[in-house]
Amino acid sequence: MNLLQKLKRQPPGRIIALGFALVILIGSGLLMLPCSIQDGVTVHYIDALYTSTSAVCVTGLIAIDAGDTFTPLGQFFLGGLIQIGGLGVTAVGAGIIIAIGKKVNLKGRKLIKEAMNLDSGKGLIRFVKSVFLTTLVFEGIGALLSFTVFIHRYHPLKAAGVSLFHSVAAFNNSGFDILGGGTNLIPYQDNIMLNLVTCGLIVFGGIGFLVIRELVDARLRWKKLSMHAKVVISVSAVLILSGAVMLKLTENISWMGAFFNSISARTAGFSTYPLKEFTTPGLLVLIVLMFIGASPGSTGGGIKTSTFFVLLQGLKSAATNSGEKAFHYAVPKDSFRKASVITFLALGVVIGGTYLMMVMDPGVALRDALFEVTSAFGTVGLSTGITPDLSIGSKLLSILIMYIGRLGPLTIATLWHFSVGDRVRYSEGNIAIG
Amino acid sequence: MNLLQKLKRQPPGRIIALGFALVILIGSGLLMLPCSIQDGVTVHYIDALYTSTSAVCVTGLIAIDAGDTFTPLGQFFLGGLIQIGGLGVTAVGAGIIIAIGKKVNLKGRKLIKEAMNLDSGKGLIRFVKSVFLTTLVFEGIGALLSFTVFIHRYHPLKAAGVSLFHSVAAFNNSGFDILGGGTNLIPYQDNIMLNLVTCGLIVFGGIGFLVIRELVDARLRWKKLSMHAKVVISVSAVLILSGAVMLKLTENISWMGAFFNSISARTAGFSTYPLKEFTTPGLLVLIVLMFIGASPGSTGGGIKTSTFFVLLQGLKSAATNSGEKAFHYAVPKDSFRKASVITFLALGVVIGGTYLMMVMDPGVALRDALFEVTSAFGTVGLSTGITPDLSIGSKLLSILIMYIGRLGPLTIATLWHFSVGDRVRYSEGNIAIG
Ligand SMILES: [K+]
Ligand SMILES: [K+]
Repeated sequence: MNLLQKLKRQPPGRIIALGFALVILIGSGLLMLPCSIQDGVTVHYIDALYTSTSAVCVTGLIAIDAGDTFTPLGQFFLGGLIQIGGLGVTAVGAGIIIAIGKKVNLKGRKLIKEAMNLDSGKGLIRFVKSVFLTTLVFEGIGALLSFTVFIHRYHPLKAAGVSLFHSVAAFNNSGFDILGGGTNLIPYQDNIMLNLVTCGLIVFGGIGFLVIRELVDARLRWKKLSMHAKVVISVSAVLILSGAVMLKLTENISWMGAFFNSISARTAGFSTYPLKEFTTPGLLVLIVLMFIGASPGSTGGGIKTSTFFVLLQGLKSAATNSGEKAFHYAVPKDSFRKASVITFLALGVVIGGTYLMMVMDPGVALRDALFEVTSAFGTVGLSTGITPDLSIGSKLLSILIMYIGRLGPLTIATLWHFSVGDRVRYSEGNIAIG
Repeated sequence: MNLLQKLKRQPPGRIIALGFALVILIGSGLLMLPCSIQDGVTVHYIDALYTSTSAVCVTGLIAIDAGDTFTPLGQFFLGGLIQIGGLGVTAVGAGIIIAIGKKVNLKGRKLIKEAMNLDSGKGLIRFVKSVFLTTLVFEGIGALLSFTVFIHRYHPLKAAGVSLFHSVAAFNNSGFDILGGGTNLIPYQDNIMLNLVTCGLIVFGGIGFLVIRELVDARLRWKKLSMHAKVVISVSAVLILSGAVMLKLTENISWMGAFFNSISARTAGFSTYPLKEFTTPGLLVLIVLMFIGASPGSTGGGIKTSTFFVLLQGLKSAATNSGEKAFHYAVPKDSFRKASVITFLALGVVIGGTYLMMVMDPGVALRDALFEVTSAFGTVGLSTGITPDLSIGSKLLSILIMYIGRLGPLTIATLWHFSVGDRVRYSEGNIAIG
């Protein structure tokens, strides 16, 4: 067919963007099926589209509570959309092709390289396989451990389903739950086991498959790790710690709650405390964490930890008139430029989105709108509670912002231009940005 | 003296910073003198310090109304502080040295170069003279035209004083008034003459002395202007126009009001409408305008129009994979980096300041705190009205932020490091940043 030929000749970025859009649309259809929706519940298409986007973009913002709205089949669809979104449409496609024994052609390899933020095409198929294996192992262990918690509340079959859903949701940093009542994990705020399991899944899911593989290959020895892995791990640790301390300073929560919310804000989006009771300074801390987000090549969003690191190094270098260094490597010259571009595009999306939301919903305060839009952009899913009451315009806006956030603002900005040659991803000093 | 010797050996940035701090302290003392304060009014030192900082940093945020608090002598001191702040401590110092017929030595020339954001030391003395002359001409004409307005309300002597003060305040983009009642220019919101005169003074004061001189030299012919002048004039025009249109979209104000507030937000800080009645989207537009601010080498603050332009060019270049151009010149490679550094430092100051203000004054909403802090950083002086009721901590914070905003965040960041060689100001393509 002519259309298919034309599609095949498109640059990778466009094909990936189209793939995500297609999965979102199919997902919204699946969630609208009568067998997906509980008896007596009405779902408007805008909310199905919102939920599907939120799932595929692993955001977790909810206009309708998944536990109270969807049947087990609908929740299964939702879990599937989260898994596809978390792995990425391309990886899932490649996985299927590999699984049925077909060969991945050159075009396909290019797509995978672009989608997974890789620097070279070497060992690509092996990498895709390891991504699937990693996901399976983490989600399996996560589900088993979660089961020990949920079995106390539900009958075994339901507990198994809830555990599996929770593990998938947590590892993919999606923030969804099917516990009902719209309270997310608040009932479990003091359950140590569920706090630990969820945080573990979030952290490994958000650190990136490349780094997980490096950690396995290096058998956890710090010195053997690349600069990229060291940067990502250090920045994540510093952000988690400082976020927790700052939240503890202004909010009336336990230390476990402070750590959980600090970890969760950087893209996972689960909450164990009602955010609408947070102080505005506390929410501002969460907004900054949400904006920075997870690490590249992970299931998470935001401008990314490595981008944030390169920005800080650039500022330090400007203030001290010295070169940019990190762990005895020089930061590549081009990195600061790319990090800046990504951050400014992200700021533009967040500020513009906040403006438009407040114009379309005049009753919404700056703090709530900024929080909601940053959450959508960082594919976080936390909310001060305004989501269900937003106008259709603001919901469509959130859908667009989640989509931009999942694909990355730079990918979106370059969609209209066929870039000659590949854009630099991993440069000299080996650090992935965005 | 040993101390003086040591001081002389300091890099220009530190001497300038010290000079500003000294003038602020002296100013706060002058404003505390009994002869400066009206009978029956009590002024706390924190408010005198706040007012002096606000004047020297040409901000115009007021904790106490100048018209209701100070005597004509106090108001004269205030006007003097604004004039010194607007011209810059260095230029005033150089002006005095030149006026008494002394020679400016090499060290002094270096200081002037740094303070006035110049690219070379050529014609420095001539430039300082032209700066004084320009100021005198504009403020003289401004005062005469303002007099035709104020004579209808005050007796001639008072009208002359008010006119002179207003002209100085407007040309130096300070936003102060001595009309009393804390209503700034709201009583004159429909006075066409005062709107035009004030806008004219603000625009020329904010466009930079270099550009004014270029306009005179080129006899207003566009083609003869440098890239820097073209950029600054175009960006200012686009910002004024789009700001006015956006304000008109969400606020219930006249077109003249929309233009006045759009012009005034980019660092002048006069208001003809009560800002606390503005919608939040409207305030967000003002916040963005305040953050961008005026042009380099002017009396205004913010990250500067040229910085904003270079950022936009960098984003465009990244999205289209093309070089950065402007008016048939290539934008120098280093510009984007410097513009990014300045903008991130500015964002850090604004976000950090907003956080601290909300921690110290828990009752203040995000929208008001963000507005107040951006206003202080951009040395704008607009406020939603929270200034007088802020805690001492928040007032000290505002004082610090006004000071950082006036000197520029990059100057502050490099204060602790002696930079080897001069930092690049004007590079290849000739565009001044920050
Ligand atoms: K999420
Ligand atoms: K001002």
